[in-house]
Amino acid sequence: MGKIYVVGIGPGCEEMMTLHAKNTIEACDVIVGYRTYIELIRKLYPGKEFIESGMRSEIDRCRTCLELAKEGRTVALICSGDAGVYAMASPMMETALDDGFSDVETVPGVTAAQSGSALLGAVIANDYCTISLSDLLTPWDVIEKRLRCAAEGDYCIAIYNPSSHNRAGYLKRACSILLEILPGDRPCGYVRNIGRDDTSVKVCTLSELCEEQTDMFTTVFVGNSATYIKCGRLITPRGYDIK
Amino acid sequence: MGKIYVVGIGPGCEEMMTLHAKNTIEACDVIVGYRTYIELIRKLYPGKEFIESGMRSEIDRCRTCLELAKEGRTVALICSGDAGVYAMASPMMETALDDGFSDVETVPGVTAAQSGSALLGAVIANDYCTISLSDLLTPWDVIEKRLRCAAEGDYCIAIYNPSSHNRAGYLKRACSILLEILPGDRPCGYVRNIGRDDTSVKVCTLSELCEEQTDMFTTVFVGNSATYIKCGRLITPRGYDIK
Repeated sequence: MGKIYVVGIGPGCEEMMTLHAKNTIEACDVIVGYRTYIELIRKLYPGKEFIESGMRSEIDRCRTCLELAKEGRTVALICSGDAGVYAMASPMMETALDDGFSDVETVPGVTAAQSGSALLGAVIANDYCTISLSDLLTPWDVIEKRLRCAAEGDYCIAIYNPSSHNRAGYLKRACSILLEILPGDRPCGYVRNIGRDDTSVKVCTLSELCEEQTDMFTTVFVGNSATYIKCGRLITPRGYDIK
Repeated sequence: MGKIYVVGIGPGCEEMMTLHAKNTIEACDVIVGYRTYIELIRKLYPGKEFIESGMRSEIDRCRTCLELAKEGRTVALICSGDAGVYAMASPMMETALDDGFSDVETVPGVTAAQSGSALLGAVIANDYCTISLSDLLTPWDVIEKRLRCAAEGDYCIAIYNPSSHNRAGYLKRACSILLEILPGDRPCGYVRNIGRDDTSVKVCTLSELCEEQTDMFTTVFVGNSATYIKCGRLITPRGYDIK
């Protein structure tokens, strides 16, 4: 029997992979993943066998990995960012264990909450939540409840999947909910295309964030009550007296 | 003028560092950090200058980095896990900007929420919170409020700093608060010494977690309402129909 590794490759560039992720993929017989992520790493592994698929075929992708592993092959199922956060470790493990196959290992990676925060300054520095605005798998009323709880708990918030072609306006809806609890001048920011050639970073207020145009390659950040902007950086103090 | 890099080295072993973290430290003139973290990487950088300090001297450590940078040196301030999450990016940026020095860059790393979840299976797979139980910098009533909001929002929860010599019993207090909202059979787990030689992993229920002994090198995980245990793995479904 083979083995399946679910590997987080980080934001997308080679240098943001861990050595473990890089070596694990190198040691596998075949690399499986969403087309866009395969393109990010293809040049690092010349001569390897790649199997790519499109969006919304996540469970088919897991079944492909399982079949390959049962044929005795070692398989790397790649994910951008971490392998667990809104990624493939969970569906892959469910699919494999459901079929009695347990040789699945997760290789973690740097997730967008951390890499985006680093580009903005130090916004995710204290207790934080991540929330995805995609309602394909989570009902919108659950998302709404989580947004309210995050605001009431004074968490820093990282918002994944703030909008997409079919979900234009979701970020505005989320901001409206947050604005019922948080002030309009709450420091926020967002990062587009983290770790890729055309990364862009913007710092703004929560009121301004309502009107911003984002896409599925954007990660959005909302500060907690102590977060401030200085020299263009978004900083959440940890509580030290720095004087 | 020099430059300061705040670098997350991941859980502690070389292979869980990103290439960017490893190369950034290599390119710096001097490496500054908490004694325990310096020991984790010292052998990777033979001949380098190291400046180590003890716990609770975080702001002194930042000032040391700032002085070195103002003397024209490039400095790596290292953190375990990520450079931002309960780490040094925020106090370093505050200290530097307060003094008019802005050449501070953050190099993110794999945080314990992701590396611990990978060892337990796939518990951090959907919306999640991280909460530190250390009340050195955050008042306990804020921590308590955040625990309640996390439970009410049906978040997966990663608990950092569950206890220490001076905070024995804090995890039990936190579990008692969660148990006001969550059922006693809620799947949980914890990981000790992630990425080091003597890593240990345990899966249990929330009621059992109340009685567990943990320390400051332990990260604790509480599942959401969909999390289940199968073949010893802690899995939070993302909502896919895997049949």
